[in-house]
Amino acid sequence: MSGNPNIDTVRALAEQYSNWGRWGSEDGMGTLNLVKPEHIQQAATLVNSGKSISMALPFDEDGPQTGGLGRFNPIHLMIRDGADAIAGTSIRDFYGGVDKHFRGTDDIIIMPLQSGTQWDALGHVVFGDIIWNGYSADQVSSKGAMKGAITEAKDSMVGRGVLLDLPRAMGVDWLEPGFSIGAAELDRAASFGNVEVGEADFVFVRTGAIARARAQGGWGDYAGGDAPGLGLASTEWVGERDIAAIATDTWGLEVRPNETPDVAQPMHIIFIVHMGLWLGEIFDFEALADDCAEDGTYEFMFVGPPLPFTRAVGSPLNPMAIK
Amino acid sequence: MSGNPNIDTVRALAEQYSNWGRWGSEDGMGTLNLVKPEHIQQAATLVNSGKSISMALPFDEDGPQTGGLGRFNPIHLMIRDGADAIAGTSIRDFYGGVDKHFRGTDDIIIMPLQSGTQWDALGHVVFGDIIWNGYSADQVSSKGAMKGAITEAKDSMVGRGVLLDLPRAMGVDWLEPGFSIGAAELDRAASFGNVEVGEADFVFVRTGAIARARAQGGWGDYAGGDAPGLGLASTEWVGERDIAAIATDTWGLEVRPNETPDVAQPMHIIFIVHMGLWLGEIFDFEALADDCAEDGTYEFMFVGPPLPFTRAVGSPLNPMAIK
Amino acid sequence: MSGNPNIDTVRALAEQYSNWGRWGSEDGMGTLNLVKPEHIQQAATLVNSGKSISMALPFDEDGPQTGGLGRFNPIHLMIRDGADAIAGTSIRDFYGGVDKHFRGTDDIIIMPLQSGTQWDALGHVVFGDIIWNGYSADQVSSKGAMKGAITEAKDSMVGRGVLLDLPRAMGVDWLEPGFSIGAAELDRAASFGNVEVGEADFVFVRTGAIARARAQGGWGDYAGGDAPGLGLASTEWVGERDIAAIATDTWGLEVRPNETPDVAQPMHIIFIVHMGLWLGEIFDFEALADDCAEDGTYEFMFVGPPLPFTRAVGSPLNPMAIK
Amino acid sequence: MSGNPNIDTVRALAEQYSNWGRWGSEDGMGTLNLVKPEHIQQAATLVNSGKSISMALPFDEDGPQTGGLGRFNPIHLMIRDGADAIAGTSIRDFYGGVDKHFRGTDDIIIMPLQSGTQWDALGHVVFGDIIWNGYSADQVSSKGAMKGAITEAKDSMVGRGVLLDLPRAMGVDWLEPGFSIGAAELDRAASFGNVEVGEADFVFVRTGAIARARAQGGWGDYAGGDAPGLGLASTEWVGERDIAAIATDTWGLEVRPNETPDVAQPMHIIFIVHMGLWLGEIFDFEALADDCAEDGTYEFMFVGPPLPFTRAVGSPLNPMAIK
Repeated sequence: MSGNPNIDTVRALAEQYSNWGRWGSEDGMGTLNLVKPEHIQQAATLVNSGKSISMALPFDEDGPQTGGLGRFNPIHLMIRDGADAIAGTSIRDFYGGVDKHFRGTDDIIIMPLQSGTQWDALGHVVFGDIIWNGYSADQVSSKGAMKGAITEAKDSMVGRGVLLDLPRAMGVDWLEPGFSIGAAELDRAASFGNVEVGEADFVFVRTGAIARARAQGGWGDYAGGDAPGLGLASTEWVGERDIAAIATDTWGLEVRPNETPDVAQPMHIIFIVHMGLWLGEIFDFEALADDCAEDGTYEFMFVGPPLPFTRAVGSPLNPMAIK
Repeated sequence: MSGNPNIDTVRALAEQYSNWGRWGSEDGMGTLNLVKPEHIQQAATLVNSGKSISMALPFDEDGPQTGGLGRFNPIHLMIRDGADAIAGTSIRDFYGGVDKHFRGTDDIIIMPLQSGTQWDALGHVVFGDIIWNGYSADQVSSKGAMKGAITEAKDSMVGRGVLLDLPRAMGVDWLEPGFSIGAAELDRAASFGNVEVGEADFVFVRTGAIARARAQGGWGDYAGGDAPGLGLASTEWVGERDIAAIATDTWGLEVRPNETPDVAQPMHIIFIVHMGLWLGEIFDFEALADDCAEDGTYEFMFVGPPLPFTRAVGSPLNPMAIK
Repeated sequence: MSGNPNIDTVRALAEQYSNWGRWGSEDGMGTLNLVKPEHIQQAATLVNSGKSISMALPFDEDGPQTGGLGRFNPIHLMIRDGADAIAGTSIRDFYGGVDKHFRGTDDIIIMPLQSGTQWDALGHVVFGDIIWNGYSADQVSSKGAMKGAITEAKDSMVGRGVLLDLPRAMGVDWLEPGFSIGAAELDRAASFGNVEVGEADFVFVRTGAIARARAQGGWGDYAGGDAPGLGLASTEWVGERDIAAIATDTWGLEVRPNETPDVAQPMHIIFIVHMGLWLGEIFDFEALADDCAEDGTYEFMFVGPPLPFTRAVGSPLNPMAIK
Repeated sequence: MSGNPNIDTVRALAEQYSNWGRWGSEDGMGTLNLVKPEHIQQAATLVNSGKSISMALPFDEDGPQTGGLGRFNPIHLMIRDGADAIAGTSIRDFYGGVDKHFRGTDDIIIMPLQSGTQWDALGHVVFGDIIWNGYSADQVSSKGAMKGAITEAKDSMVGRGVLLDLPRAMGVDWLEPGFSIGAAELDRAASFGNVEVGEADFVFVRTGAIARARAQGGWGDYAGGDAPGLGLASTEWVGERDIAAIATDTWGLEVRPNETPDVAQPMHIIFIVHMGLWLGEIFDFEALADDCAEDGTYEFMFVGPPLPFTRAVGSPLNPMAIK
């Protein structure tokens, strides 16, 4: 990668690490094909202390979204509530014939599927006219994804998880916006955590972006602004390891501003469109990172399937680290 | 329980098996308090063959809801799609300055939190004027649940899972609507599966209701109609075992029509309001049940946390059985 | 129109009555261009008895939609309510610092813009690859309509209204599904109402479909099923009169099943795509028709603008007849 | 009103101008009862030049809402679009059996009913435990309004409109935030416009707040912040005239900060809860005001019914001035 990176760099890396056709012409699972029963068996052996730690940010109106790309924070509304029961009206008017004693409460959510802690499905990114595995982009129409849907991961996302805590490895509170993560930083964090990253692993890269937002008392431009993240120099490290998925605590996984002036989101193009790699975003690693720092163990069993929304290109989830 | 059951029966059972105050006056976790590290450690040892099997029904417009209680099937809509990229217009008009190569797709979901595979939070049921642990029902107002919210289970729902396959144990395709499940049937299915159910277990009771809907080619009145389910005669069995949670493949867990003519949903009152027991509904056990029948193993590691929707009284999930 | 009608018939009629280019190459108003100040002045003179009569069906969960084309009935949810005020909780928890005396209530709507009483915008129909005035169909992308949006009618939809009450003119309770309305029936109803239909008029064609649904105690297949409506034989009558808009009390204006086996919705193609004519659907004429029958006056001032939803292809409205 | 105004001032004014019981114990129309056929007849005579001018702000994501009170700007999403037709996919996959030539486009709106140009229904405000006409506030529960619903105005909102252009009358571009409008200012603007305001009139009070937002290039704290508006000193003027409704170009009609330190939104309490007066907010008077300044005529026919959302406490609308 001598010279300034540009779209030709992206095309070259994409071709070099492409997995198109590797799992057949009809594939929609991409790198989740790499997870075999032995990986799940092995992951279960990592459960020692019996702790379960969520990596989900709460889903609510205080989330990081500010409207960019049409994304807003989840809107939660009650359909039926308990205050009605106290007040008495709704019993009389709506549930009168049913019961004087029992009442249920119910609610509704309106949310972009990629507004909080989330998996990107393989149909989430279009490069030119194509998506993962070379499918035409019109497979993702106004009716949803016929190819590359989130439901492909319905029975998956179980395996060995590894936390790469970059700020702790580098002795800082968080990585600054614009910091590009490459192989050197990933190796340093793996070494710090005394783990090796290999086939079918679920890799969690902490940049400290959520810690920073909390320290600063607000999200600011966390969603869509400059951010630390994976850069072009991470491609080989990621591509050669045959990992199952990778997630960060940032809005968009890769470093912003992008390193290629003539094409946006190059890592999404390389990772999703060509590798078929599953990307996670807005994972909250803070509780897990504190725990790993305390017990010195940076590997664990990971269980984090998406919700199977039919024809969707993303999904919120509650990712669980079990130690 | 001599004589015909009524609200006095419900009150007596509720009092007998009440857990109010057991975990303090501020508790919102209820029976999830019972899950200790050793239960999680033990659950991990049940992972042998390295299989992960989802118990989620797909979330889409073909779900079982028909509008009752204000519940409808999930509405999925695209914000940005790939067909636009092919057609060319939206690039020109909306993303013109950004990039000619990269484009993302995005989508949104509108759904009642209890429209598909779901956990009930402890604030989901009101009995008279109260909810779990004796809180006033006005803790669940039009702004959501200040007590009994789904977020209480954010880091939990990991442990030993047990499938009680009643139809297979009883030699039928499915239990008929109106069939009341009591201790005898639960014991019979446990014996059939060669499992004992005990403290902190996650218990999955298959009635075959989803198999029936599929065999009949449509949901019919699955949502809100007559159904097989847990009856008053299951109270002691459930209450004495100190289980962590219980779920069925029906819309509402308990037998319908209810056994008590003067109060609706008595098991919800006993289980949720008084025991603080977490209930799961519309779990799809079909793939798991086939697998258990094949390998003869009806216990497994269970991981199925809700999504932490702030102040919500329920949550969809993708429950995972790992064997 | 000898022989059986087919797509060639549609193409011929579309060409014959095409208004493409009539109002310039950038036009999005179509036949609303025909409404001149004198039409509005004249319309105001029709106000005699001082009555205002709505033609809107209530917007709620009891509407006619059954899910076809992704259309569902409006979902109405409260954000803040008064029962909370009675119960007391939400004041304490959410509005505590604000006020003990004043409280507002608020609500939200989720609805397809064409789920009830509605105008179709000119971008609502695609014929082949084109929309009104010959624009490419990709002007209506996943981000909405750059051409043919409902906002084009923001300041319009005011003029002379004429009710053509076909069932009363024909001595029946309602027209049966499949009944094709042509020039003869329109003339007969105009004659019955003692009105002539001319330039810039807003024409309301009552079939009795809503009366029928009420008489039968339910919507049945009102939305999307067979219906009476305008047929190919109405084209000349409509096209030659240079009317401003036309609306019916049916789901889709034109007769169903369609008269052309090889192309669906031919009247939408002729009227919207080629004439640029504004179509209204699911108008509830029952109260107005009773009033017209009583006072014998079938003309009135009409005011019925859409709500200006940016880039939308339809809009609900409350159309008002003022007599 | 000597001394500093407080809740006792509000209570006294509310009692003095109360209309409770004036139109019966079951009333939900309030001041719309004042509109008689002769008012509508007279209003029609004000149509002279044949112009129709909308007072609606476009409904879209660029609206003034910033999340306060749970209110957000309208979210518009496509269900079916035309780019799919160009790309070809969705035809093949979703509409294949139907037609190769015809395709419809469709869309959906998600919006708080009071997020843009709107009427408040009489159930929108609670004072203590009561709403309009003395109904208990629990008539507005989580299921919507049993009393004071927006549907009460379904056939109404037609009459004489009068624009009171305060900035032009006072020789300023706009009134500053915090400016309290009383009888003196209203009289001055009426005199400036050469109109008298009387029974059953629809009164539109321009403060210039929308002009100010445009001049400043953004909404800023238009929604919920300090604002010019009606103050306590307007009560007598409004109450004695028996007007039908009043609307402003601000977010909340009344002056902010409120004049009463111990109770919020006193004018809402006096006007809505006690007078039963219909209030309109976020009306865009700019085009109308320019037109009135040009032709010197500040009265016109007004037609602006709400959409009849069942049990709703507000509604967006497209209010029309016809001159």
